[in-house]
Amino acid sequence: MLQLAGIAVDATSVGGMETCIQLPGYKMALDIGRCPRTAVYKDSVAITHGHMDHVGGICFHAATRSMLGLEPPTYFVGHENINAMKALFNAYRRLDRSRLAHHLVPIGPGETHPLPGGKLLRPFRSVHRVPCQGYSIWSSKQKLKPEYHGTPGHELARLRREGVEITDTVEAPELAFTGDTMIEVVEREEVVRTARLLIMEVTFIDDRVTVAEARSTGHIHIDELVERADLFENEALLLTHFSSRYRARDIREAFKARLPDHLYQRVTPLLNGH
Amino acid sequence: MLQLAGIAVDATSVGGMETCIQLPGYKMALDIGRCPRTAVYKDSVAITHGHMDHVGGICFHAATRSMLGLEPPTYFVGHENINAMKALFNAYRRLDRSRLAHHLVPIGPGETHPLPGGKLLRPFRSVHRVPCQGYSIWSSKQKLKPEYHGTPGHELARLRREGVEITDTVEAPELAFTGDTMIEVVEREEVVRTARLLIMEVTFIDDRVTVAEARSTGHIHIDELVERADLFENEALLLTHFSSRYRARDIREAFKARLPDHLYQRVTPLLNGH
Repeated sequence: MLQLAGIAVDATSVGGMETCIQLPGYKMALDIGRCPRTAVYKDSVAITHGHMDHVGGICFHAATRSMLGLEPPTYFVGHENINAMKALFNAYRRLDRSRLAHHLVPIGPGETHPLPGGKLLRPFRSVHRVPCQGYSIWSSKQKLKPEYHGTPGHELARLRREGVEITDTVEAPELAFTGDTMIEVVEREEVVRTARLLIMEVTFIDDRVTVAEARSTGHIHIDELVERADLFENEALLLTHFSSRYRARDIREAFKARLPDHLYQRVTPLLNGH
Repeated sequence: MLQLAGIAVDATSVGGMETCIQLPGYKMALDIGRCPRTAVYKDSVAITHGHMDHVGGICFHAATRSMLGLEPPTYFVGHENINAMKALFNAYRRLDRSRLAHHLVPIGPGETHPLPGGKLLRPFRSVHRVPCQGYSIWSSKQKLKPEYHGTPGHELARLRREGVEITDTVEAPELAFTGDTMIEVVEREEVVRTARLLIMEVTFIDDRVTVAEARSTGHIHIDELVERADLFENEALLLTHFSSRYRARDIREAFKARLPDHLYQRVTPLLNGH
């Protein structure tokens, strides 16, 4: 379990094999991979795209929760995949002879869904060879408007009773997860650069695979990250989804050698499975 | 990796969680569970029934083989589940945007399918709360008929040229796997009692769950096994699918305390995951 920018993250991600980012503080997972055992206890899952290594464990998640007597889970799925997802659950219902109870929530870029604890889930468009959306999670708090600073409490209570809006809603992006994507998402989506914690794929980390080859598969190459090193304002970055051809040492050494220090100090590579 | 009655077995099985019995010598798996990494290299999978913990990894198996450039796998599936299985692959094709190439072979009790190396795959009927079939694997060899014992080689060659049948086909059951079942399968299916290696579920191993409760879920209780201890002629038995409520020590102690010595000596409990 990692603690990054104050956020607990229990992540599994190996390119092509399985990706599941568990966020215990939000009781949710981003993608479900092959459904690691502990992911069963996450109440909701937001799916970035339909590739098997990101979505393959979704029905297992629903079935195991039902077996354990847990509440039906909520799945956030892009509009373009909703019908295929319904067909998937229907096929598994016929095989498993069970209800596989769950809530399916279609959601896409530009839309917001409330999460428990007053948080907000907002997809953004990633750039992959199949439709893919990243997810950002925002805090949303009411803060006293500046003009009421110093106003006594009983006076504020009176104003509130009279229907005066004495607070502003202040939202801040706590986390962004790109899913599988090409580097363009960094320039296109402000939240990728500004979220307190950015979880982003960097599938290829040396010249065994070129930038052009990386791009043809819809993924990010370390060269593209290095070129944009100054864009990232995030407090912490968790870099994931490395190709299974790389060993942990390869990845550590590549980041140490290639990233400018101001970025390197904030980066954690996800090395389990390598 | 276990070696039982001369047969290599790499098995994962925890009741309700996942069951996948890999048989490296046959290049196949019986059920696919959540598709353990090594199962990807098994060319075929025989599915006993549609419950998620036995079939949940099947599309992941096909997708990962394709990604690794391995041959399209063969899936043996009961007739009653063929249409649901086709619907499942079609739904995943829409999500994954890939072909998920594979061969689907419908098969049921009373039918035989040849396996590589001259072996034969034969399903038999198990007794579960959803349709379930066990699988037996047979060796098949040509043996000289007794009346030709001692006949010189050139004479046998001449007889063979003339179309005389000088050999008998001798088949022997090397292995039987029950899938999920109630105890009746032992009396009903001779191959369960006579296969060189029997792989059978015993989900409940003490009085935390009664025989009646075990039967209501379609599974075997240790009491039922003990009552039939004299029926098993197998050289070795691998007992699997213990409920996740049991620890390895519970299981070892239950078998030691309850099984008569002549059976106990041949039994291996599958303890990984407990």
